[in-house]
Amino acid sequence: MTDLKDKILAAVKNDLEGIETALEQNLNPYLDLVNQTASHILFSGGKRIRPLLMILSARISGYKGEKDKTFSVVFEYLHAATLLHDDIVDGAALRRGKPVANSIWSNSSTVLVGDFLLARALSISAQTRLPEVIEIIAKITEYMSQGEIHQLIRKGKIDLAEDEYMDIIQHKTAVLIEGACRVGALIAGATKEEEMALSKYGINLGIAFQMVDDLLDYTSDVSTLGKAVGADLKEGKLTLPVIYSLNKAGTKDRDKMEKIIKCKNFSDDDFFTFIEMLKKYEGIKYTKKLVLEYVDNAKKSLSVFKPSITKENLLNIADYVIARKN
Amino acid sequence: MTDLKDKILAAVKNDLEGIETALEQNLNPYLDLVNQTASHILFSGGKRIRPLLMILSARISGYKGEKDKTFSVVFEYLHAATLLHDDIVDGAALRRGKPVANSIWSNSSTVLVGDFLLARALSISAQTRLPEVIEIIAKITEYMSQGEIHQLIRKGKIDLAEDEYMDIIQHKTAVLIEGACRVGALIAGATKEEEMALSKYGINLGIAFQMVDDLLDYTSDVSTLGKAVGADLKEGKLTLPVIYSLNKAGTKDRDKMEKIIKCKNFSDDDFFTFIEMLKKYEGIKYTKKLVLEYVDNAKKSLSVFKPSITKENLLNIADYVIARKN
Repeated sequence: MTDLKDKILAAVKNDLEGIETALEQNLNPYLDLVNQTASHILFSGGKRIRPLLMILSARISGYKGEKDKTFSVVFEYLHAATLLHDDIVDGAALRRGKPVANSIWSNSSTVLVGDFLLARALSISAQTRLPEVIEIIAKITEYMSQGEIHQLIRKGKIDLAEDEYMDIIQHKTAVLIEGACRVGALIAGATKEEEMALSKYGINLGIAFQMVDDLLDYTSDVSTLGKAVGADLKEGKLTLPVIYSLNKAGTKDRDKMEKIIKCKNFSDDDFFTFIEMLKKYEGIKYTKKLVLEYVDNAKKSLSVFKPSITKENLLNIADYVIARKN
Repeated sequence: MTDLKDKILAAVKNDLEGIETALEQNLNPYLDLVNQTASHILFSGGKRIRPLLMILSARISGYKGEKDKTFSVVFEYLHAATLLHDDIVDGAALRRGKPVANSIWSNSSTVLVGDFLLARALSISAQTRLPEVIEIIAKITEYMSQGEIHQLIRKGKIDLAEDEYMDIIQHKTAVLIEGACRVGALIAGATKEEEMALSKYGINLGIAFQMVDDLLDYTSDVSTLGKAVGADLKEGKLTLPVIYSLNKAGTKDRDKMEKIIKCKNFSDDDFFTFIEMLKKYEGIKYTKKLVLEYVDNAKKSLSVFKPSITKENLLNIADYVIARKN
C-alpha cells in the first residue's frame, strides 16, 4: 500500500506542488480572518485528490493549456467549504488530527468563511468562460447540500435503506469527484466519449471513496484516521456496513445494535460489540466487496484511453482508494 | 408614503406575481425540509425588491424575452441564503415578525438550506449561458460573504470608522442590488452606457437602502419593523448614526454611549438615552442627509434613458427607499 502511495506521489509531484501554489494564490482574501480560517482547513494535510483528478483528467484528454492548476482549486475549495459547514453540523471535535475550525473560531465565522470558499470556487469556475463547466459546478454544490441535508434528516433513523444510503453518498461525495473528472475533460475539449468515460470513472471512484471512508470509521484507529473512530455511529450516521448488518441480524442482535446506535455515549466495550456485529453479519465484508466492484468499474471505464503514464496514474489512484488507511 | 408604495405596487403587480410563481417553480427541492426551511424565509413577506429591480432594469434596456422572471429569482435566493446564514450569526429571534428559521429548525439544517439556496441561485444563473452574468453573480456572493465577515470581526469595536462602515455595507448589501440591475441590463443586451447607468443606479440605491435599514433600528418600533428595535446595538453592530455621533460627542457623552454599547442587556431607558445622543450629535440627521444624496445619485444616473413607465417605476422605487418604514 505504502508502495502504491509513494508511486503515485512521485508521479504527480509537480502537479501537487502546482496545486499548493494555486490554492494559496487563488484564496485572495481581503481579511485576515478569512485567510486564517480558510488556511486552517485548506492547509491541514488534505490529499488534494479532487484537484489532482481534474488535472489528470484534463491531461489524459489532451489538455495543453496552463490554467489547469488554477481551475483545479475549485474542487478543493468546494470540498473545504463543505468540510467547514459539515463540522458545524456534525459537532465533531477533530478533523485530520487538528481541532475543527469552528472550535477555534466561532460557528458564525466558520459559516461565513465556508460561504466565501463556495463563492470563490464559483468565481474561479466562471473564469473558464465555459457555460457547461459552470453549470456542472453549480449543480455539484446544489447536489452536495441536498446530500448533506438528506443525511442530516435521516440521522439516527435505523430504517435507512441501502438505496437511500447510495443516494446520499452520491450526492454528498461522488458528484464532486465526478465533476472534477468531467470538468477536466471539458476544459481539454475532450470528445463526448472521453468525457463520459471520465464521468463514469469519477462517479464510481467517488462512491468507492465514500464507502471506504465509512468503513474506516469501524476499522481504523484515531492516530491513523486523524479523527475519532466511531464518530459516525456517535452522530447517528448509519453507513453501509451498519445498514447491511442490521438487515441481516436476528431480532436479538438487531436490538442490541439499535440500543448502541440510540445511546450516544456508548462505551468502548459497546463499540467493540458493535464492530463484532458488523463482522458477524458481514456488513464490513459486503461493503468491501462493493468497493472492489466500484473501483473495478472506475478502472474499466478508462479503456477508451490508450496506455499512457497519466492513465496509469488514474488507475493507481483507483487502487489506492481501496488500499488507503486514512 | 403609502401613496407612493401603492403606486409602485399597482404598476408592477404583474411582475410581482410573476416573481412569486418563479420563486416557487425554481425552488425545485428534492427534500421536504429544504422546501419548508426555504419557504419559511422566501415566503414571509419579503419585498422582492431585488428581483423586481432586475426585471425593470432588463425592461428599460429593451428586454423582449421571457426568461426575466426566472433569472430574477437568483437575486431573491441569494438574499434569502444570506438571511438564513446571518440569522445564525446574529443570534436574533425575529425576522419580518416571524421566528428566525434556525429557531424552528436547527442551526445545522439552516446552514445547509442556505447553502442549497446559494447553489440553486448559481445553477439558475448558469442557465443564462452568459459568462459575464455568471461571473458577476459569483463575485456578488464572494463580496457578500466578505462584507458579512468584515462586519462580524468588527462587532462591538467602537473605533469602527465611517469608511470601514461604507466598505461593509457596499459588500454586504449594495453589490447584490447593483448586480440585479446590471444583470438586467446584460440579459437585455444593453449598451455599455446603459449597463453602467443601471450599475450606478443600483450601487447608490443599495447603499441608501442599507443606511435606511440601519436608521430604522433607531427610529422604528417592533410592530412596524417586524423585528426587535435596537437589535443592531445589542449585537454590537455599529452603524453610521452611531459612528458619526461617537465622533462628534465630547468625552462625557462618548463614555456614556460606549458604556451602553458594551452592555449587551441595556434597559429601555438606556436605549432611549442612546437615541437622544444620536439626535444630539446629529448622527441620525447626517445619515438621512447621505441617504438623500445617494438616492439622488441613483435617480440622476437614469438620465441616459428616455422617459417611460419603467423609468418612472425605477425613480419611484428610489424615492420609496427613503420613505419606507420597514
